[in-house]
Amino acid sequence: MKTKVGIVGATGYTGSELVRILVRHPEVEIVTITSESRAGEKFSDVHPFFRNIFEMELEPVSSLENQQPEIVFLALPHGISMEYVKRFENSNFRIIDFSGDFRLDSPEVYESWYKKDHSFAGGFKNAVYGLPELFRAEIENATLVANPGCFPTGAILGITPLLSENKVSIKPLIVDSKTGVTGSGVKAKNVTHFPNVSDNFKPYGMKTHRHTIEIQQILDQVCGTSTTVQFTPHLLPVDRGIISTIYLQPTGEINEDEIAEIYRSFYQEAPFVRICPSPPSLKDVRGTNYCDIYHTFDERTGLIMVVTAIDNLVKGAAGQAVQNMNIMLGLDQSTGLHQVPLNP
Amino acid sequence: MKTKVGIVGATGYTGSELVRILVRHPEVEIVTITSESRAGEKFSDVHPFFRNIFEMELEPVSSLENQQPEIVFLALPHGISMEYVKRFENSNFRIIDFSGDFRLDSPEVYESWYKKDHSFAGGFKNAVYGLPELFRAEIENATLVANPGCFPTGAILGITPLLSENKVSIKPLIVDSKTGVTGSGVKAKNVTHFPNVSDNFKPYGMKTHRHTIEIQQILDQVCGTSTTVQFTPHLLPVDRGIISTIYLQPTGEINEDEIAEIYRSFYQEAPFVRICPSPPSLKDVRGTNYCDIYHTFDERTGLIMVVTAIDNLVKGAAGQAVQNMNIMLGLDQSTGLHQVPLNP
Amino acid sequence: MKTKVGIVGATGYTGSELVRILVRHPEVEIVTITSESRAGEKFSDVHPFFRNIFEMELEPVSSLENQQPEIVFLALPHGISMEYVKRFENSNFRIIDFSGDFRLDSPEVYESWYKKDHSFAGGFKNAVYGLPELFRAEIENATLVANPGCFPTGAILGITPLLSENKVSIKPLIVDSKTGVTGSGVKAKNVTHFPNVSDNFKPYGMKTHRHTIEIQQILDQVCGTSTTVQFTPHLLPVDRGIISTIYLQPTGEINEDEIAEIYRSFYQEAPFVRICPSPPSLKDVRGTNYCDIYHTFDERTGLIMVVTAIDNLVKGAAGQAVQNMNIMLGLDQSTGLHQVPLNP
Amino acid sequence: MKTKVGIVGATGYTGSELVRILVRHPEVEIVTITSESRAGEKFSDVHPFFRNIFEMELEPVSSLENQQPEIVFLALPHGISMEYVKRFENSNFRIIDFSGDFRLDSPEVYESWYKKDHSFAGGFKNAVYGLPELFRAEIENATLVANPGCFPTGAILGITPLLSENKVSIKPLIVDSKTGVTGSGVKAKNVTHFPNVSDNFKPYGMKTHRHTIEIQQILDQVCGTSTTVQFTPHLLPVDRGIISTIYLQPTGEINEDEIAEIYRSFYQEAPFVRICPSPPSLKDVRGTNYCDIYHTFDERTGLIMVVTAIDNLVKGAAGQAVQNMNIMLGLDQSTGLHQVPLNP
Repeated sequence: MKTKVGIVGATGYTGSELVRILVRHPEVEIVTITSESRAGEKFSDVHPFFRNIFEMELEPVSSLENQQPEIVFLALPHGISMEYVKRFENSNFRIIDFSGDFRLDSPEVYESWYKKDHSFAGGFKNAVYGLPELFRAEIENATLVANPGCFPTGAILGITPLLSENKVSIKPLIVDSKTGVTGSGVKAKNVTHFPNVSDNFKPYGMKTHRHTIEIQQILDQVCGTSTTVQFTPHLLPVDRGIISTIYLQPTGEINEDEIAEIYRSFYQEAPFVRICPSPPSLKDVRGTNYCDIYHTFDERTGLIMVVTAIDNLVKGAAGQAVQNMNIMLGLDQSTGLHQVPLNP
Repeated sequence: MKTKVGIVGATGYTGSELVRILVRHPEVEIVTITSESRAGEKFSDVHPFFRNIFEMELEPVSSLENQQPEIVFLALPHGISMEYVKRFENSNFRIIDFSGDFRLDSPEVYESWYKKDHSFAGGFKNAVYGLPELFRAEIENATLVANPGCFPTGAILGITPLLSENKVSIKPLIVDSKTGVTGSGVKAKNVTHFPNVSDNFKPYGMKTHRHTIEIQQILDQVCGTSTTVQFTPHLLPVDRGIISTIYLQPTGEINEDEIAEIYRSFYQEAPFVRICPSPPSLKDVRGTNYCDIYHTFDERTGLIMVVTAIDNLVKGAAGQAVQNMNIMLGLDQSTGLHQVPLNP
Repeated sequence: MKTKVGIVGATGYTGSELVRILVRHPEVEIVTITSESRAGEKFSDVHPFFRNIFEMELEPVSSLENQQPEIVFLALPHGISMEYVKRFENSNFRIIDFSGDFRLDSPEVYESWYKKDHSFAGGFKNAVYGLPELFRAEIENATLVANPGCFPTGAILGITPLLSENKVSIKPLIVDSKTGVTGSGVKAKNVTHFPNVSDNFKPYGMKTHRHTIEIQQILDQVCGTSTTVQFTPHLLPVDRGIISTIYLQPTGEINEDEIAEIYRSFYQEAPFVRICPSPPSLKDVRGTNYCDIYHTFDERTGLIMVVTAIDNLVKGAAGQAVQNMNIMLGLDQSTGLHQVPLNP
Repeated sequence: MKTKVGIVGATGYTGSELVRILVRHPEVEIVTITSESRAGEKFSDVHPFFRNIFEMELEPVSSLENQQPEIVFLALPHGISMEYVKRFENSNFRIIDFSGDFRLDSPEVYESWYKKDHSFAGGFKNAVYGLPELFRAEIENATLVANPGCFPTGAILGITPLLSENKVSIKPLIVDSKTGVTGSGVKAKNVTHFPNVSDNFKPYGMKTHRHTIEIQQILDQVCGTSTTVQFTPHLLPVDRGIISTIYLQPTGEINEDEIAEIYRSFYQEAPFVRICPSPPSLKDVRGTNYCDIYHTFDERTGLIMVVTAIDNLVKGAAGQAVQNMNIMLGLDQSTGLHQVPLNP
């Protein structure tokens, strides 16, 4: 019998992407999907491309517990998500939260970077950071998984192998990232108006982007260090995907072979990390849960460069959430995640 | 035990798209995939996004028969394909040919539209036009399936229900189509150079495109008429997909309800045709085998308009080929074709 | 001394495009530019790419008459524009109105297609349709020029030469148009959200688009006929430009040479119409006031096809307005309009 | 009387862009434009969007000297250009060379980065690096101007003000650049095939791109230092433009005001450098000769970041060449370069 899962938040990109994956997952069944604003309509009214595929009626969140799901995904914006985590504190299901509300170390750090109050400090003690390549054991038994941000996923997976071996200097870790537009959400706004994006390109959120502190805190936690991350996102005229170009200063002598062995070894049991012999492109991972990683050492300059590519909606959101769910349910972590890249 | 299939032609878009589908198909197994130019390399050397997914070594076509496939796909350009159909005339496998070499009524028609000689006239007598919504019974036992062209698929599925009921005038049938760039193939050329396509748009092949005669002959055959098709393709700055906007003149009084009933009835057993209440867009079908159809009648002008959307690499090529294969093997025709649209 | 001109409406695309042209126009000077919502800010605050180029302070419209402009451009949405035309009824300047408010024959027709009341019926009697290739004499002395819609410009210029000679059937005139996103305006909305447009394509406004009646009424007026226009717009993933593919039924025997002579003769004194030996593309006219026209006759089907290309913001809006202004001021109509296409 | 200029190389993007600018330049006249491969055809046959604008017949280069130009532009690839510089060694005209053949310090450096022999070592002694913001005096009297590379233009203009004041560490200077496709040239190749670029993104030429050494040598020359430049280009799915994100380590205490004053002062007489209060985007400079520069200091990390934006075909090629020409001819350096950005 399939495991029952519920989804809170149907109208956004991460919600529809989650349905895209779960509707073909062999071991789980979506028993409810909620939307306050569109309750009573069908999921395929909101996302017409799901016609004939998934036409479940959207319900208000109040009906969630009637369905007795084992796992509930919160595909909600930050600030909203914490309210639901609080509300569900004593429910019987386990939660995978897509938002940034419980990813950081404390409500204080949250408030200083998100510029808003945190209403459920009690959630932090249970929250596990849902990056399976680093925290698999903790995820297995978690009742609240804070699904990682899209930029942090690619940045942390790119830096950790070298940093955890003390092979690179802790400051500054320069992460120059370029993202597709879906990272900005389903709602039309000025910065995502087609003529403002198409045939265009620019950095944004320099010095202040919230994912900076997420990357930094997780690296510090995993590697036992105190890093300084310089993170600069840029907006690409593409739908999906993030390329992060990372510049690292070795702490001592190093060479390509040694670097290669560190990455190979670190990820030997990670089915979604592919170490690549040349720089990956966005379309190499489009629609999939892969994180492609390229590393190289420039003898002329003495710097190491690492390039990572993910699909921000899959490995950066819904796919990673399903990977976490699989681990929580004791399934093979790649169950239902065998999508082949759509390329071109 | 899975059915053995082979693929001739690995380097093009239709070849890689076919692998994308077949590698997850539950009932078949790719036993060989050939390339003359890249034999000895791995499939994932040619298409790096298949790393860790499908790394079979490419073989010359000479090794095909050793593997005893039941079905062989020819993912080759026209003109080349006919040579292989001829060569395999007495082989034990059945062929699904992606090219235009055996889609038309005769070598003479072929030569007049393709402007080249046909070297295997004998193939025409066995060839079945592989559009399952119209020719399912013939496909079941076919030894040579001529997989339809991308434009004809959307055009014929859009026009046939009304035309076969004599509800629309046979001339001229105006098909104004807009296609993504992958229809032009994997090989770089001037017309597909990024700066010539991006932020640009234009018609091409007006009056002379070979799919004109393919649409016209199949409509004539299915509907027992003698149509005149005016087909105008345009090149969109997108990767995949074809929208065809079709203008039809009713032969008599008609209304929306009657039209709706004709389409509903015609496609009631067609799992890949979705009749839509509003015009479809390319992303509604991206990566899938669906043909979305919208129809409307303009009382002011007296014209019927039909809009169809397909993914040219799936319903317009590899997906349709797998649908044909399923029928030939006695499987449910949608086996392995449950892809959800990648949108956005 | 340069002629003084004013612009009402600074924040939209047509406003900024008008400034792009006028700021380099040798014979006129922008003396005021207004915005109610952003008054007090600089034009380059609203459009930062004008930094160091045009930094005039935006004023409320109330200060317009102090500057004593000879010509005022209304770069406003329909419905708003009529209010200003009414308000300026007795002013000393002549008006070029970008909106659709005074393009049609009567307030009644307006109301039936625009689905809103018209508040200044008195404006219609003075309004001249500002398509210089057809109404140059009327424009010279006009006090109110209704600058044509973007789609009508390309459609009417494509059809008129043949229709006015009674060479083509009056019904139905099929105009299948494809437009860039800027036609939809500067304001972010769901249909122009990048992920809804990029790598996508679809028709919209089928049967009901307001430009249908504009095309039809002007053709009827110019050609003394009573046409039926079937107009279908589609949204392209490009910023600028409109391609219209037009299908016409000849009324009698015709051939390519005869058609060519009709177009050549009709446009021999039109500096912005270029008759092309092959179909034009959007980038051929990008940033310019050209209308490129290709015509062909298909002997096989008996249909004539005409393809026109314009930049919707230039020949379809701001450039055409400047052309009209030049005519009104007795200047050479191409003054200040010598932009070379930006291609690629 | 206008100054006579000639252009060698008509078929590429820099050639057509140069004509776009010069054909409207008030002080010069194109007297000849050459192409060996298309001699005898018109310029507008090669670039149809120039129909009615510039239809000069292309000539073989042998006819160049008959026209007695004062300035000749070589819009040729590297490796070819050096042959023409050699051939014209004793001619009466001055040369502006678009290629990389004479930008570096010596033939030896050229050979080690370009991986090909240099056939005219004698050219180096006369060559002046044509970046007017740094070398205006030298350009005035130059007989051979080596027009800068597109990436170096943005990188050098971004770094020089701080580096020349010893405010930033000389190694490593990290330049993370993102370029449009036209930088790769007019010729179709695999990497510029539309489906390989659209909705995609990736780095290329890591560690080995030739512009690395050009940036490094010019910085060393201007600033009297010995820098190490880490330059990583990435390919954007856009036609034109380069954004460079530059990471610099201050040598001592510094603050935003001090940085701002350094840039303001350095560029106070540079008409094409715009210091911006927020990060520029590609469309802010599209079609123009501007270099937009944004600088910021991150107190948290201690790093300075500089972002520059140029149009690679204008400030990165043809526009800069015209700016150099103006200086060589004693004209105001912005003559004929008053293009307004085409945005959107």
